[in-house]
Amino acid sequence: MRFSSRGQVDPFIVMDVMEAARAAEAAGRHIIHMEVGQPSTPAPAGARKALAAMLEKDALGYTVALGLPELRAGIAALYRRWYGVDLDPGRVVVTAGSSGAFLLAFSALFDAGDRVALGAPGYPSYRQILRAISVTPVDILTKPENRYQPVPAEIPRDVQGLIVASPGNPSGTMLGKPELAALMAVAAERDLAFVSDEIYHGLQYEAPAVTALEVSDQAYVINSFSKYFSMTGWRVGWMVVPEDHVRTVERLAQNMFICPPHASQIAALAALDCVEEAEAMRAVYAENRRLMLEGLPKAGFTKIAPPDGAFYIYADVSEFTQDSRAFAAEILERAGVAVTPGLDFDPVRGHTTLRFSYARQTADIEEGIARLAAFMAAR
Amino acid sequence: MRFSSRGQVDPFIVMDVMEAARAAEAAGRHIIHMEVGQPSTPAPAGARKALAAMLEKDALGYTVALGLPELRAGIAALYRRWYGVDLDPGRVVVTAGSSGAFLLAFSALFDAGDRVALGAPGYPSYRQILRAISVTPVDILTKPENRYQPVPAEIPRDVQGLIVASPGNPSGTMLGKPELAALMAVAAERDLAFVSDEIYHGLQYEAPAVTALEVSDQAYVINSFSKYFSMTGWRVGWMVVPEDHVRTVERLAQNMFICPPHASQIAALAALDCVEEAEAMRAVYAENRRLMLEGLPKAGFTKIAPPDGAFYIYADVSEFTQDSRAFAAEILERAGVAVTPGLDFDPVRGHTTLRFSYARQTADIEEGIARLAAFMAAR
Repeated sequence: MRFSSRGQVDPFIVMDVMEAARAAEAAGRHIIHMEVGQPSTPAPAGARKALAAMLEKDALGYTVALGLPELRAGIAALYRRWYGVDLDPGRVVVTAGSSGAFLLAFSALFDAGDRVALGAPGYPSYRQILRAISVTPVDILTKPENRYQPVPAEIPRDVQGLIVASPGNPSGTMLGKPELAALMAVAAERDLAFVSDEIYHGLQYEAPAVTALEVSDQAYVINSFSKYFSMTGWRVGWMVVPEDHVRTVERLAQNMFICPPHASQIAALAALDCVEEAEAMRAVYAENRRLMLEGLPKAGFTKIAPPDGAFYIYADVSEFTQDSRAFAAEILERAGVAVTPGLDFDPVRGHTTLRFSYARQTADIEEGIARLAAFMAAR
Repeated sequence: MRFSSRGQVDPFIVMDVMEAARAAEAAGRHIIHMEVGQPSTPAPAGARKALAAMLEKDALGYTVALGLPELRAGIAALYRRWYGVDLDPGRVVVTAGSSGAFLLAFSALFDAGDRVALGAPGYPSYRQILRAISVTPVDILTKPENRYQPVPAEIPRDVQGLIVASPGNPSGTMLGKPELAALMAVAAERDLAFVSDEIYHGLQYEAPAVTALEVSDQAYVINSFSKYFSMTGWRVGWMVVPEDHVRTVERLAQNMFICPPHASQIAALAALDCVEEAEAMRAVYAENRRLMLEGLPKAGFTKIAPPDGAFYIYADVSEFTQDSRAFAAEILERAGVAVTPGLDFDPVRGHTTLRFSYARQTADIEEGIARLAAFMAAR
């Protein structure tokens, strides 16, 4: 049977790493996982408890497409708590993870043949989802001296949209309010759709993270319960859209998703109140980050972007390799540490970069750093 | 901020009916719901129990994109149980409901500008999802004398794909094996992608439902836990694809969804064993159908498609109205019964049709039929 050409998306190289790590574990080796982009912890206890109770008493049928009204209100309240921003819950769209939000956002904003600018290195699925709906991603090769974030002068002329991420994946770097405002001003001036990926908000360790909504309501802001609330597999996220976009997004959501998973919405609503547990995880990541920022340079990985948030460190390893895939395989083989080659994030320059994740428990991170140091010393 | 043109999808008229029904209930009226397309029952007790147990012991992080291996194996086993078909679990893709399956299928099969044939009346979201990815739906105006199912001679020449549904929504009619084989033969001959929507399988009341896989493996077969297993809000379905399409669909799924909701997969896996509960619901629908087939003609709705399965009856009401929307509003207002105007399913001819759902409990169905009879008698 026929295939579409858009079905031909790039493979995720990290999947090969994960497969190789699984094979090594199956053969009896102990592997430290610095390749994964998810917490090792379950959803907050309060979230799981709320769902367990609801399983007894509710049919958990379809919800309305935009999500449970009380969850939309709870998310709006989070913007007051986190940023001091007043947000109309009517502008909040609950989605099937941030993936669902991207599908909805890109469908609402772009037509086949449109071109959309985004930073490289960046989250690989932006590019693949855009291509899957016949939109062309246009990479901005962001500079290490700009902390791998785009600057206004780099925005191409012939695009219809701009996607930014702060904290970024794989870099962990953030855009300050002036930098974000400068990018949004260019977008407004040129009538570009502006999409702000804020999925790692909550996980910042020094300065507070800035939401695009502090600058202007003319943005699609995307976030999720996956990272800060440790709910990756639940597939529940959200999007804040300009008021006049709500109806359009609602109709797309009715047709493309019907609704986000009901059980996950129940758990997410309760998670909003589990501040203590989420903050305890943030403290773990903060300690992990401290260990990484101390240990990686000592091991020899000195060219790293200053990671303001998320749980990643992106390292330039050009002095050691021109083939990050082979280098990652060597690290897995010889050090027993799984790391991600940069090619998933930056097809052009990722052959000389690696991403290290510190989402796991601190003991694992300590062991991983020790193994990396021994590997580099022996190399 | 800019909109895409593909964001301009048709509204669901049934949503207006549901809103009007809600408003009537808020004003103190008692409404019988014959507009909804979902069971009123929760997921099987065994499914809810399995999830409650897992909430205690598993982090429920991401699963692999194609779904839990044991769930894929369980679904494959269902094909042996239901149809006597041997199915390699490697061809089963667990999805975020049938909606997620359609998004994946259409992305894997069609490019922007392609044209895809589908029967009208039919499930409205096929058309809207196709348009959202810049593919043009081409309606086949199926005939009442063909039980609202397409026949080979009606397949347009200039299309790249064909979607069929058996049992159909809104008609409830099924394609027998010879009819299905004839349509698949044309698709194979012309190299059309063939998509078979089998979401109502399990809910048939006389002849067994035939899966496209009994005819050939050159099809995308889509099903879900929503209807037979009463798990609408869980957003978990599946798709069976030809072996050489698995990798393509996997890559798309990794990027577009990451994975189906993990908690829902756990519940769905247990649901596969809850045969008794599912069959008890089928018995309720069978009795409801008997009452409807007896009561609707007596009330005056005599032109109905013979509903082999699902929980719908589609009626030609052209002798009473040329405006199904106004007629549905009148039925809601005067009889207190919510029904769906045909326009959602057939934009061309739906102004003279209605869909009645009998998914609710039997007492509701009896009351609804009595109200409809009184309304029609007084009209």
